[in-house]
Amino acid sequence: MSLKKLNLLKTRLNEKGYSAYIVPGTDPHGSEYLPAIWQRRQFITGFTGSSGDCVISNSECGLWTDSRYYLQAEEQLAESGFTLFRQGIAGVPDISEWLCSQFSFSHRVALDPQLVSIQKAEELQQKLSQSNIELIFDSENLIDNIWENRPSFPEKPVFILSDEIAGKNADQKLKYLRQQLSNMESDLIILSSLDSIAWLTNLRGSDIPYNPLFISYAVVSETTAKIYIGPTQVPDHVKNARKDVWDFGNYFDFEKDLISISGKRVWLDKGKNSYWIYLLIKNNNSILFEKNPVEYYKALKSETEIKNMIKAHTIDGSAVTKFLCWLQKESSTNGVTELSAAKKLEEFRRQAKAYQNDSFHPISAFGPHGAIVHYSHTKESSIPITENGLYLIDSGAHYLFGTTDITRTIAIGQASSEQKEMYTRVLKGFIHLITTSFPQGTSGSQLDVLARQYLWEIGLDYGHGTGHGVGYFLNVHEGPQAISPSRGWDTPLKPFMVCSIEPGFYKTGEYGIRIENLVYVDVDKELSSDSNLFYCFKNLTQCPFDSNLIDSKWLTAFEIDFINQYHQQVKINLEKYLNAHENEWLEKIIRPIEC
Amino acid sequence: MSLKKLNLLKTRLNEKGYSAYIVPGTDPHGSEYLPAIWQRRQFITGFTGSSGDCVISNSECGLWTDSRYYLQAEEQLAESGFTLFRQGIAGVPDISEWLCSQFSFSHRVALDPQLVSIQKAEELQQKLSQSNIELIFDSENLIDNIWENRPSFPEKPVFILSDEIAGKNADQKLKYLRQQLSNMESDLIILSSLDSIAWLTNLRGSDIPYNPLFISYAVVSETTAKIYIGPTQVPDHVKNARKDVWDFGNYFDFEKDLISISGKRVWLDKGKNSYWIYLLIKNNNSILFEKNPVEYYKALKSETEIKNMIKAHTIDGSAVTKFLCWLQKESSTNGVTELSAAKKLEEFRRQAKAYQNDSFHPISAFGPHGAIVHYSHTKESSIPITENGLYLIDSGAHYLFGTTDITRTIAIGQASSEQKEMYTRVLKGFIHLITTSFPQGTSGSQLDVLARQYLWEIGLDYGHGTGHGVGYFLNVHEGPQAISPSRGWDTPLKPFMVCSIEPGFYKTGEYGIRIENLVYVDVDKELSSDSNLFYCFKNLTQCPFDSNLIDSKWLTAFEIDFINQYHQQVKINLEKYLNAHENEWLEKIIRPIEC
Repeated sequence: MSLKKLNLLKTRLNEKGYSAYIVPGTDPHGSEYLPAIWQRRQFITGFTGSSGDCVISNSECGLWTDSRYYLQAEEQLAESGFTLFRQGIAGVPDISEWLCSQFSFSHRVALDPQLVSIQKAEELQQKLSQSNIELIFDSENLIDNIWENRPSFPEKPVFILSDEIAGKNADQKLKYLRQQLSNMESDLIILSSLDSIAWLTNLRGSDIPYNPLFISYAVVSETTAKIYIGPTQVPDHVKNARKDVWDFGNYFDFEKDLISISGKRVWLDKGKNSYWIYLLIKNNNSILFEKNPVEYYKALKSETEIKNMIKAHTIDGSAVTKFLCWLQKESSTNGVTELSAAKKLEEFRRQAKAYQNDSFHPISAFGPHGAIVHYSHTKESSIPITENGLYLIDSGAHYLFGTTDITRTIAIGQASSEQKEMYTRVLKGFIHLITTSFPQGTSGSQLDVLARQYLWEIGLDYGHGTGHGVGYFLNVHEGPQAISPSRGWDTPLKPFMVCSIEPGFYKTGEYGIRIENLVYVDVDKELSSDSNLFYCFKNLTQCPFDSNLIDSKWLTAFEIDFINQYHQQVKINLEKYLNAHENEWLEKIIRPIEC
Repeated sequence: MSLKKLNLLKTRLNEKGYSAYIVPGTDPHGSEYLPAIWQRRQFITGFTGSSGDCVISNSECGLWTDSRYYLQAEEQLAESGFTLFRQGIAGVPDISEWLCSQFSFSHRVALDPQLVSIQKAEELQQKLSQSNIELIFDSENLIDNIWENRPSFPEKPVFILSDEIAGKNADQKLKYLRQQLSNMESDLIILSSLDSIAWLTNLRGSDIPYNPLFISYAVVSETTAKIYIGPTQVPDHVKNARKDVWDFGNYFDFEKDLISISGKRVWLDKGKNSYWIYLLIKNNNSILFEKNPVEYYKALKSETEIKNMIKAHTIDGSAVTKFLCWLQKESSTNGVTELSAAKKLEEFRRQAKAYQNDSFHPISAFGPHGAIVHYSHTKESSIPITENGLYLIDSGAHYLFGTTDITRTIAIGQASSEQKEMYTRVLKGFIHLITTSFPQGTSGSQLDVLARQYLWEIGLDYGHGTGHGVGYFLNVHEGPQAISPSRGWDTPLKPFMVCSIEPGFYKTGEYGIRIENLVYVDVDKELSSDSNLFYCFKNLTQCPFDSNLIDSKWLTAFEIDFINQYHQQVKINLEKYLNAHENEWLEKIIRPIEC
């Protein structure tokens, strides 16, 4: 099937005179999760991971993805006609290096300019030019041409996030953005990032799985503010509520209106706006390249947002705790599977009326599946959770007043001493990082190693970042901050930024371990003076660790004390949400660890 | 005096119609240490630090420097007419932000294009354009015009580094560079970095204080290799020794020859070549912007170089140990000063016949001066080393077979318990970093925090990076690797790279502590497998820590064991170089620490 599509596409390439065609795994808004209509890379390769780009050429076809997806890609690419290129492994060429090795002078490589940021487009152009390869920005998307029964454009109704919940109202936010415009002496800014637009307008939608977003562009000037969105998806009461500040235009008029902009100083974000937008306006306007200021402002949560996030995490933590209690009882007897377990967790979450939906596709992984960092269970792949093994559940939810993301790993039956050592080493890294205070100006990237060092001691590591920013009833992954060796260097952590802390360890074919809490950054009052600010992490996630997996012989007194205190805190916060049986189970699992 | 110069310069600005003039603290080769002829910023401001740029305007004049130089700059700028801008402090504008706040449309800001890299020039241009400030690249240097009795161009004789000592011969190195040229399908490369040229040619010079370099440019193509250098400074026997591979042209013909290059694909390094070079060739050639490959290749030392560095560090360590022994005895009695102490250390080093000269101006700092991170003692500032206090000596030497850089802090008289705690915390960070093994692909920047964490615990930190690359009888500071929060992210540490590890703590007005050893990166055979490489640091520096400053109550058994083992190693290596009295002193200072 996949091969048939591939041959169709190759024919089209030849007609167009292209040596190769790049299909990025993103959409015109640089989204991580895509609506079905834009899942072009999935359509042509069969690989469903949330990150990965592919290249089609007559000689060879390749898919590039990172270590989180190596195993999944291997399985899904079998007989697809695509070679897997494992990003991040020494000696594996990236797409541009590979293209330069395959092609040269007079060869033409094409790409849809809507699917690449200005920055990536320029980098690609520069690298390919070194081999005299011509990069063609072809607005006719070749995948769409061969896609039968392509899903349609989603136009789910948009709804309002009340000011009490949002913390800041939409007028204040727009005012802030206009202040930035005048500071930078810029006439207007074009926003492509869906979460920036949702945050800025205090509106939410459901066009995209797991993200409460609506597909749109926003154009803001000193005097105008216009959203381009599906014509049928904004109810009149929403239009009326925003009519004093926001115009609502048709998403499909955006291109026409862009072309008509001229003589302006336009603010674009090289990393967030597509090269297509740049091509449409660059000739008639002067461009200011700066980061989209909304993204940064959005990352600095308000007091209201933090207060609500704390509430959301108590409710969410109780659901996950109920689930873990249920699982350890049921798994032994009633043939629970990865699939049914995930369903059950969703049931527990649904019991909270503020629950909206999951914030990402949960990873419900038993045994060897746990080693697939972003394993996605399906009817076919789902296995029973029965014999001895580790079960890893990475999941999250959207509540009207916050978004959660939590990972717990628990022992089903008897855990091996190796598994206990690894779990304890991962936990040590987690504790070291979450208890570290750091001076103002420190980036999350500087702190990443603190969570890895206990694995490094024995020659081990994990192949993903340690933490990401988290939105407020928005994307579960947001920037600009990160706790990662490769991202976020240039973003110092600031008070009320929210991050995940999620070290792990993965043994291919055997088991996976990950421990994830969300935290927010706050001022460390004890260590700070007026001239010298220190920050610390404050914990949000309320859910026990599995003491059956903790081997105290690897722990210091400080670490043991942290675990016992955290568990007491969890008990105090969750008690009233749990029934007698669940509280009993909790008591058992959080029994104090002795030195 | 300084004010008179300043007024002359301001008059010149007005004649030229410039609102402001930028004087970078570097030279046409991006050097850190400058020959007197190019110390323009020092000439106009009086500030002698090795890092800092200044701006002259009719309204205000400013000098920008980093935390290493805050105190020194405060002292030296008094009554200079320059305002100090402390880089790295939140809210302090950088030069471009400051210019944008002062000037706007129709204002012209000028700069000598020889004194700014292509990258910095482009960034500056982009930022100033945001306020519609015009950036003028004026090749007439306005400082030179008003500089009476300006020092002349140094033309010190160049000499040959023998192949045995260099490890790789000059032909091999040139062959490597030409391989890079053909890999990148580039016709020629222009080298501006003096240490790259010295390394590539296995030649050394003495045009610059502390750096064994000669002022030159190199232009290399598939068939040609030409060095532009002072006409009188290459002896005939050197010319003959290199005549098969290298032409020697006149430094002052470089501009003329550049202009004549056309139709070529020229390799430039945006960070290393000046904007002046780019301006001269950009119109008639296509430019490939990539990092200068020599810098990276130079950083990966050969086995010969590592073998020799080990030898150099034993000789150097014995000299520093003799010095410390001498100082602790003499300081109590014979009125030793910072100046006479530094002289004495040089004497000890001179006793080795391979000693060439110091690798940088030694920092000999007692008491409060120790808190000035790059304190430079002068006849005026030098104070006696007598009462109770901490003495910090940061120094290094060039030997024909290697370069050293070492810092030790010792107690003169009685140290306070606070000083002991701080010294011990700095030492803990040093130990944690030097004993950490890390996976292939890890950058020094990722490791920086490991040396800071024990100060962070109590709300303290130090305002400089933790480590820099070190050359082989070349610059004591070289790239591309670094152990720093702000530099070297994109350079994974590789086997046989040499780095310093130098955490510190500085209490303004009271004392300074720094502990610095050099290390090289090697494969950690215990932790590595074929599929999974781990690296570790191997120590080079041989010199005791001051056990009078170590408070074991802050140390773990592991740390105590490290110190005792290191000291035993030092004793074994140095014993034969020390006299009876010195060995006795060493025995005392390295007495084993008890748990």
